[in-house]
Amino acid sequence: MMVGAFSMKKSMIIVAGGSGTRMGAEIPKQFMEVAGKPILMHTLDVLHNADRTMQLILVLPNDQFQFWESLKNKHHFKLQHEMAVGGATRFLSVSSGLEKVTGELVGVHDGVRPFVSEKMVETCFSKAEETGAAVPVVPIVQSLRRLEEDRSEAVDRNLFRAVQTPQCFKTHILKAAFKSASGTDYSDDATVVEANGQTVALVDGDLMNIKITSPLDIELAELITARRTISN
Amino acid sequence: MMVGAFSMKKSMIIVAGGSGTRMGAEIPKQFMEVAGKPILMHTLDVLHNADRTMQLILVLPNDQFQFWESLKNKHHFKLQHEMAVGGATRFLSVSSGLEKVTGELVGVHDGVRPFVSEKMVETCFSKAEETGAAVPVVPIVQSLRRLEEDRSEAVDRNLFRAVQTPQCFKTHILKAAFKSASGTDYSDDATVVEANGQTVALVDGDLMNIKITSPLDIELAELITARRTISN
Repeated sequence: MMVGAFSMKKSMIIVAGGSGTRMGAEIPKQFMEVAGKPILMHTLDVLHNADRTMQLILVLPNDQFQFWESLKNKHHFKLQHEMAVGGATRFLSVSSGLEKVTGELVGVHDGVRPFVSEKMVETCFSKAEETGAAVPVVPIVQSLRRLEEDRSEAVDRNLFRAVQTPQCFKTHILKAAFKSASGTDYSDDATVVEANGQTVALVDGDLMNIKITSPLDIELAELITARRTISN
Repeated sequence: MMVGAFSMKKSMIIVAGGSGTRMGAEIPKQFMEVAGKPILMHTLDVLHNADRTMQLILVLPNDQFQFWESLKNKHHFKLQHEMAVGGATRFLSVSSGLEKVTGELVGVHDGVRPFVSEKMVETCFSKAEETGAAVPVVPIVQSLRRLEEDRSEAVDRNLFRAVQTPQCFKTHILKAAFKSASGTDYSDDATVVEANGQTVALVDGDLMNIKITSPLDIELAELITARRTISN
């Protein structure tokens, strides 16, 4: 796939800060295996396949570097990527990865979203190249309520979208936004950019692009992988 | 389980209006099999087990009554329940079921939520008995954006909750709300009640209480069922 051969150089920051506590597991979720391979390796592979010239920057907590090295050896994982030291929040982790970015476009992707499609990566970057900032979103399938001080009220779910990754930007825009940001508590990267006055474009996400956050998700991931293997 | 032996009489309206088009399947999703049994039968069974004195009212599109009969014969499904004819919207379907309600408390449950726990049914009804109206909600795990006219903006997901079922009410409150409602386009039942001035209490939902809306959900449902069988 010769995606992006003549377009702007791209970098992708892969954030994987999970400590495993939410999973109730010993091993952080990004390292758990699906189809015999750690989730994070699936994610890196698909990003590389989307654009073989893309710079890959993996952000991990410092105390997980050694474990990652051992996993790479165990799985003979040779895919070239750089490392950055993660921080206490997503904002700090992305900041850390951002220092290593050499591309004119940069994406931020959750390490635990191994089912992102190559097409989605391309679509998000294309839209970012055109508009400056683009994120994939999917409709909300459940009814939503907004919490008020001592009550709650229904809101129209059709007015909302759930945000996925990769969230893609012109690098100078993301860097400027991170530099101007007040505080370090942002739920995603688009929010940081938006707080700096940049409009964020939306592209259609993919319900298959799940974020693996629970033990059940791991099993679901096995299913998705098995089905893909069959259909290929 | 002697739940509710001395409390108010309960009715549950089970809505299952799916035509199967969203699934890309021939068969409406409520009839698809999980562990060899149609989803709707799983749902009815768990509701019955939660309270064996509860009136069960199944709302189906008119043209699915015959198919349901054939499924009951095929699966030797003997659980007592009443039938009501579904309408074009959820509001109309619930209205139809509501005409048959004899309980002092009434719940509305999605037919395609077979993994509701007996405890959740009890909790929602108890809270409804206390407050008049109660729905189960779960936190939003993805970042949220709100669509504006020509842009979108991030919203704090911590201020929102996703609504599940059963949504439970004092029957006279739900009936009054449906009678006063303007239009027939409500995303859930709590919204109708709220539009009539009634505050809706929230109880903790359960991430396992999934709504089966995609082919992937069916596979996930198989997984959940398999795991429960192992652990039982």
